[in-house]
Amino acid sequence: MSSLANERVAYFNGRVVPESDVLIPFRDRGFLAGDAAFDTARSFGHKIFRLKEHLDRLYRSLRYLKIDPGLSPKEMSAITEDVFARNTHLLDKDDDYWVSQRISRGVPADDLTVSSDARPTVIVECKPLPLKQRATLFRDGIEVVVPSVRRAAPDMLSPRAKTHNYLNLTMGDLEARERNPKGWAILLDADGNIAEGTGSNFFMVRDGIVMTPQSRYVLPGVSRAVTLELAAKLKIPHQERDIDLYDAYTADEAFLTSTSLCICPVRSINGRAVAETAIPGPVTRQLIDAYAGLVGMDFVGQYLRRIER
Amino acid sequence: MSSLANERVAYFNGRVVPESDVLIPFRDRGFLAGDAAFDTARSFGHKIFRLKEHLDRLYRSLRYLKIDPGLSPKEMSAITEDVFARNTHLLDKDDDYWVSQRISRGVPADDLTVSSDARPTVIVECKPLPLKQRATLFRDGIEVVVPSVRRAAPDMLSPRAKTHNYLNLTMGDLEARERNPKGWAILLDADGNIAEGTGSNFFMVRDGIVMTPQSRYVLPGVSRAVTLELAAKLKIPHQERDIDLYDAYTADEAFLTSTSLCICPVRSINGRAVAETAIPGPVTRQLIDAYAGLVGMDFVGQYLRRIER
Amino acid sequence: MSSLANERVAYFNGRVVPESDVLIPFRDRGFLAGDAAFDTARSFGHKIFRLKEHLDRLYRSLRYLKIDPGLSPKEMSAITEDVFARNTHLLDKDDDYWVSQRISRGVPADDLTVSSDARPTVIVECKPLPLKQRATLFRDGIEVVVPSVRRAAPDMLSPRAKTHNYLNLTMGDLEARERNPKGWAILLDADGNIAEGTGSNFFMVRDGIVMTPQSRYVLPGVSRAVTLELAAKLKIPHQERDIDLYDAYTADEAFLTSTSLCICPVRSINGRAVAETAIPGPVTRQLIDAYAGLVGMDFVGQYLRRIER
Amino acid sequence: MSSLANERVAYFNGRVVPESDVLIPFRDRGFLAGDAAFDTARSFGHKIFRLKEHLDRLYRSLRYLKIDPGLSPKEMSAITEDVFARNTHLLDKDDDYWVSQRISRGVPADDLTVSSDARPTVIVECKPLPLKQRATLFRDGIEVVVPSVRRAAPDMLSPRAKTHNYLNLTMGDLEARERNPKGWAILLDADGNIAEGTGSNFFMVRDGIVMTPQSRYVLPGVSRAVTLELAAKLKIPHQERDIDLYDAYTADEAFLTSTSLCICPVRSINGRAVAETAIPGPVTRQLIDAYAGLVGMDFVGQYLRRIER
Amino acid sequence: MSSLANERVAYFNGRVVPESDVLIPFRDRGFLAGDAAFDTARSFGHKIFRLKEHLDRLYRSLRYLKIDPGLSPKEMSAITEDVFARNTHLLDKDDDYWVSQRISRGVPADDLTVSSDARPTVIVECKPLPLKQRATLFRDGIEVVVPSVRRAAPDMLSPRAKTHNYLNLTMGDLEARERNPKGWAILLDADGNIAEGTGSNFFMVRDGIVMTPQSRYVLPGVSRAVTLELAAKLKIPHQERDIDLYDAYTADEAFLTSTSLCICPVRSINGRAVAETAIPGPVTRQLIDAYAGLVGMDFVGQYLRRIER
Amino acid sequence: MSSLANERVAYFNGRVVPESDVLIPFRDRGFLAGDAAFDTARSFGHKIFRLKEHLDRLYRSLRYLKIDPGLSPKEMSAITEDVFARNTHLLDKDDDYWVSQRISRGVPADDLTVSSDARPTVIVECKPLPLKQRATLFRDGIEVVVPSVRRAAPDMLSPRAKTHNYLNLTMGDLEARERNPKGWAILLDADGNIAEGTGSNFFMVRDGIVMTPQSRYVLPGVSRAVTLELAAKLKIPHQERDIDLYDAYTADEAFLTSTSLCICPVRSINGRAVAETAIPGPVTRQLIDAYAGLVGMDFVGQYLRRIER
Repeated sequence: MSSLANERVAYFNGRVVPESDVLIPFRDRGFLAGDAAFDTARSFGHKIFRLKEHLDRLYRSLRYLKIDPGLSPKEMSAITEDVFARNTHLLDKDDDYWVSQRISRGVPADDLTVSSDARPTVIVECKPLPLKQRATLFRDGIEVVVPSVRRAAPDMLSPRAKTHNYLNLTMGDLEARERNPKGWAILLDADGNIAEGTGSNFFMVRDGIVMTPQSRYVLPGVSRAVTLELAAKLKIPHQERDIDLYDAYTADEAFLTSTSLCICPVRSINGRAVAETAIPGPVTRQLIDAYAGLVGMDFVGQYLRRIER
Repeated sequence: MSSLANERVAYFNGRVVPESDVLIPFRDRGFLAGDAAFDTARSFGHKIFRLKEHLDRLYRSLRYLKIDPGLSPKEMSAITEDVFARNTHLLDKDDDYWVSQRISRGVPADDLTVSSDARPTVIVECKPLPLKQRATLFRDGIEVVVPSVRRAAPDMLSPRAKTHNYLNLTMGDLEARERNPKGWAILLDADGNIAEGTGSNFFMVRDGIVMTPQSRYVLPGVSRAVTLELAAKLKIPHQERDIDLYDAYTADEAFLTSTSLCICPVRSINGRAVAETAIPGPVTRQLIDAYAGLVGMDFVGQYLRRIER
Repeated sequence: MSSLANERVAYFNGRVVPESDVLIPFRDRGFLAGDAAFDTARSFGHKIFRLKEHLDRLYRSLRYLKIDPGLSPKEMSAITEDVFARNTHLLDKDDDYWVSQRISRGVPADDLTVSSDARPTVIVECKPLPLKQRATLFRDGIEVVVPSVRRAAPDMLSPRAKTHNYLNLTMGDLEARERNPKGWAILLDADGNIAEGTGSNFFMVRDGIVMTPQSRYVLPGVSRAVTLELAAKLKIPHQERDIDLYDAYTADEAFLTSTSLCICPVRSINGRAVAETAIPGPVTRQLIDAYAGLVGMDFVGQYLRRIER
Repeated sequence: MSSLANERVAYFNGRVVPESDVLIPFRDRGFLAGDAAFDTARSFGHKIFRLKEHLDRLYRSLRYLKIDPGLSPKEMSAITEDVFARNTHLLDKDDDYWVSQRISRGVPADDLTVSSDARPTVIVECKPLPLKQRATLFRDGIEVVVPSVRRAAPDMLSPRAKTHNYLNLTMGDLEARERNPKGWAILLDADGNIAEGTGSNFFMVRDGIVMTPQSRYVLPGVSRAVTLELAAKLKIPHQERDIDLYDAYTADEAFLTSTSLCICPVRSINGRAVAETAIPGPVTRQLIDAYAGLVGMDFVGQYLRRIER
Repeated sequence: MSSLANERVAYFNGRVVPESDVLIPFRDRGFLAGDAAFDTARSFGHKIFRLKEHLDRLYRSLRYLKIDPGLSPKEMSAITEDVFARNTHLLDKDDDYWVSQRISRGVPADDLTVSSDARPTVIVECKPLPLKQRATLFRDGIEVVVPSVRRAAPDMLSPRAKTHNYLNLTMGDLEARERNPKGWAILLDADGNIAEGTGSNFFMVRDGIVMTPQSRYVLPGVSRAVTLELAAKLKIPHQERDIDLYDAYTADEAFLTSTSLCICPVRSINGRAVAETAIPGPVTRQLIDAYAGLVGMDFVGQYLRRIER
Repeated sequence: MSSLANERVAYFNGRVVPESDVLIPFRDRGFLAGDAAFDTARSFGHKIFRLKEHLDRLYRSLRYLKIDPGLSPKEMSAITEDVFARNTHLLDKDDDYWVSQRISRGVPADDLTVSSDARPTVIVECKPLPLKQRATLFRDGIEVVVPSVRRAAPDMLSPRAKTHNYLNLTMGDLEARERNPKGWAILLDADGNIAEGTGSNFFMVRDGIVMTPQSRYVLPGVSRAVTLELAAKLKIPHQERDIDLYDAYTADEAFLTSTSLCICPVRSINGRAVAETAIPGPVTRQLIDAYAGLVGMDFVGQYLRRIER
């Protein structure tokens, strides 16, 4: 059992088990159809940030998919904190976790239909942030690639529900990576406006104004919301608005937000350098500092320290 | 081990195991992202029908997703026949199987990206056809419901690749079932033409002409192809063309094709009875008979016999 | 003539006549082409509410269609009040009227063209509100159905002009009624956002914020405007914005506004119960109370009293 | 009663009455909502042409709208021939009639809904063709104007059902007439292809090939079908295909088809003369001659003779 | 050389030369592909207005096209002032200039590609305003025509970059002029909203509110920005919002803004007179007066004085 | 004048002059607005191929733009042959020319409008084919990149007219080159189907069937037409149809056609190797051989010989 001491545990349908025991029957609709919702928060200094906002969004995703998790938000919150606590001892002091809830529709008696007889599959799990893999992004800036694939439209499958159906974004990622192994795909929506990437929201700055796409075609990220809050607090003008490639190519600064990255500067868009040559630019820097203040941790340093190792 | 005698086996990453041992690690991208392709053939009288066509389509789906299964089509075919053979003794004489290959991108070292370092997860499995659950469809006809959800567009995620991302269709199914517990959803595409349902293609007959949507917005079903072949052989005029609700509401006959159903008559569309009151109508009947001839089995009888039981 | 005492009168091309004498030649373009505009106000306690706003909108609809009614707004207002007054004696004390102006392009010498030689057909008429038929809606909430039919786009025929061309909405109503005899259709627009129903506007509440679609794709209802005014007065945050099915399915409360209903709670959307189980929910209740205060009448009670009868 | 001898009669809900007695209650949904279907054939030499095809299309329009006329096609045909016969004595030898069936949803007990309790309103009526008004079109060619208004899309209201909702086309006509009092509007569809005008189909000829838009976005006119049949018989290559303004501006010849016009040459499109300066061009001439042969009458002469008068 | 005294000079790739010497090699991509950006300011009383704003926009257009002009904005500004000064003596006291910078991608070694080896072609030039040709517009109002051609969409070529690719707008102008020799084309965008004309922005006034299309589908004109600033200063409510034909047809007043016209009243839209019969209407008048105050010159008088001559 | 012996000559507005004298006044609308049409043929063994087809298309482009070149097709053909002949002595035996006609709208008295008073600018010119620069494409295959930019839609500016407005395609080329310096952009159209690249048409082969996009969204290339003719002659099944990325990614072979390349194999699409590893694949090889036969020259050898040099 000593090996277990080195293995993370997860909540799995009512029990806490070693992660390697979280095995999904292949007839689970989560596997067969990606028929599942999830949400992911992260910790700063071993404390989960804005869990409530993430769970609110999770329950909205579940309502959209009409999956009943069989647990109240309060119960889900307690389980999440419990799983996190049980895994903390495996974290280095300077590391942090992603913590996720994943609920699939389960294995219906008749898996052909979306009948409500199935018991959902519920997983709560942690995973160390990829601090090392992404460290250079904070030094060099992200290279954004806009693929030809368009983000799914809201009357097909809402981009605002966080589900296990990621192939639309994956097709964009494949296209971006084929062009540039370090490229991060940011997709346009059906109207040709910038939408989002896999798990990330796009921001740009022009003439001192911070802009990000409206939330209709994109997942309204918690980090995105934090960034807009901070802009408001810092009295930096900011807008949720349509942004197209003309805007992106004429930006002074640009950055992505995501749960793991918080705010990370963009270096180039389709190979064109963003105007502001400092990484990050001055407005981005201001927001990063405020973000670090809010979460009580120099999250950029946490990444950059991995480069030296 | 006697219990095993009553359990179906499946191929799972190189080994043949009892189905209950086919368990997917939750970090497999097949579960996290529905990042997998599959295909499903059926047997008639315990013989797999058109396996080659299904495997051709499977390999096209895999190429589209850029997943390398690590097995040649020939190997995949042999494994499929082998799995099928090992499970035949569990079938009643009058039953038949669905037989499916499912290949996910697996568990990459870094599951955040679509990196190619992962070994794919490969499953080949059988499942008895739901003959009993669907038997009355052949007596009463299918009640088609057209939901408000539109089928995903080809520049978002091609409807022609058969993947584990089914939520777009599932949202349509949920809408249809909420309206009519027996309803089968058939979605419109982004242009307002009839596209397809979960695993089924739509056909209609008017003035003696058999029509079905073009294959651009729909999965080009093998049963759909068989039906068009049979129409050609029977010298019934037939067209692949745009079909909208005006066409559907003014059809003389309508039917769905799918691997399990082959050809099954439609009774109504959005609650409006199809004109031809016989179930099936005369042209549909002709095609059903020819289909039965081709597969060497009265597949409608196979369904209808379940009603009496 | 005693029968006339029991028959409502209407204004018809310059004269006040019994309603049964308001007969349209079949070659009138109002009949042949739905080539007519109208507007409808209602009374509260036998007094017409916001007639001026309704007439302003009527004259905008007429300008859009390029129909000259041959009467000034002031004259139209006087005629409307006169027709209403002549019919008041037929109303029970607790009943109220819809009062409508209808102006068609008339019968041109050559009905093939939209030549301006025709004299318009002008009707002003009353009709008792369907208080009894709709009474249970206020007790049980409206069951909203979103059909597959999309609302006509503004560059085809503006949804903001109130005309006699209602078949686009009627196709949605047919679809909704076939699914649920009590269903009220609310259509999506060409972009997949919620638009409107036949004569009704959609509102929802989430996290205390009242939201309704922008007026571009919908008729800017007078009751809608009143509701937004009241929200402003009550300092309830409110937004005119794009609303899609994700929003609708994750609403806390929802309601429709229309001239007859004022504000009426929604119970379910596509069969999914709105989150707030009270009918109406707390924010809706606040707005209903304010509406009742503004019009000086408990309009909900007026409906609910019909249930006991 | 001698005046009656000079007045046409019409069928109206079971009776044959003078036209001036065909009066529609204003609460008929045909007037309130344009909620009606119709079809119109014409006579050649006092004989109705292709009545069956027109009635087939009428019954499809009725099915689309879900209106039950209460009469079989055979009964409708007999009534039509009867009404026509009763009015023939009023026709000059060289004149001909339009003959139309019009069926509205009637006056429901509750006109708010599309309930099926209403008895339909059925009218069958004749009207002399506007031979004189349109005579110069055959000498000079039609001046086509493409307005900014787009033809309604099939998932809003099918252009293939012939209904009393004509405002979409009327908005196009208004735009065209404001620009050119003799202009005939031909609308583009939502994809920017040429669709149709009020009651007319567009054809063009280039490099000897006759082309007309596919029937999806346009009413499949009976005269359009006749023209395609004749092209086939004359072995003139012909295509139903997407046609855009590039095609139209580079056409060798162009013409419109409609019930009254049969085939009438187009002189210009948006003010640009069609290349072929002869009116009609050689291929159009060939088709006109064949059309005249089929209907047994020089229909162009019938028009042109009105110019001299 | 005396003839030179009467010829304007221009900056051309580093030298100031007579305009007639500004000759472009036909293999310049500016000629072959319209591969060039430009911007145009005007003078009032022989002083250039808001040159900085025009140059800011020019440099954004250049960045969008990825053309490096080889000159800093400051250098470009100095050259512009210099060229203007050298040509002032040719201006009558009551005349003024347009002054433009034009930068093409030049003549690449291999003109097939967009390789960066080419030296850009840079021109700075003046041209007298067409005061006489346009004078009557201020007396009579502009006759706006909305053509069938739609404005290019942002994911094809951004309407916000001011380039030498004007054929999309030219196709609209051709259509408008064919209908009305005095017509000015204002195009709709892909969504059916009013976009812009060749070099002009559309404004309308209704119920005292000034409205103009959002800048996404239109070039954000400097005169447009000035007008919005003035509205703000005058406390006239104003909105950047979607405007469709319903809005335009029901406007109280309408006007266009452009560099040369500043603000010029619209008389009619598609032949329909704007409601307010005064040219200009009261709100437009207020804005014109404020504009004149800002630029320190009665620019309307400058135009109107040309009528008497 | 000896230098002239080494300089190509061109036709320029009625005269034959050295190319360096073909200089365009900067106020020519061809420069200011890209307001010009052109076409380009090539020679094989110093003989122009299919000049008539190219001129037919040129005159269609001119009609679309409403530019009158002032020369008949016959005159234009004679000028073209003459210019070609005058330049032949400058060609190596194994080289060949592109030969182009370019006609702009010229310099109107008032360049603001599209008035017809301008005399067109007419140029006819030759240019050696870039055999050396493109030689390796025939050895290695073309690397196709699909950019995010979409091809302009036909109701904005027809892709079928060959004009000097190339920025839409240039934006795609810029995106492609930024990703892969050797990348050739092939754009999708507004519906997400493959359209075309700058001067090239896309073909693919699957299951022995040759497919190319329909001509609606693409310039109907002369080489494309030749290729379809040859497929017909060789009895290779071929289709003009919608092709999307699913098709492209699952192609057996792919190639581009263009005037200079005739038929050139594609190696990869978005970095994914085309299935058939031979360059060219067997069907492409067959078509190339037939093409060489038709033009009487081993055009592939002509390219490949440049590699050795």
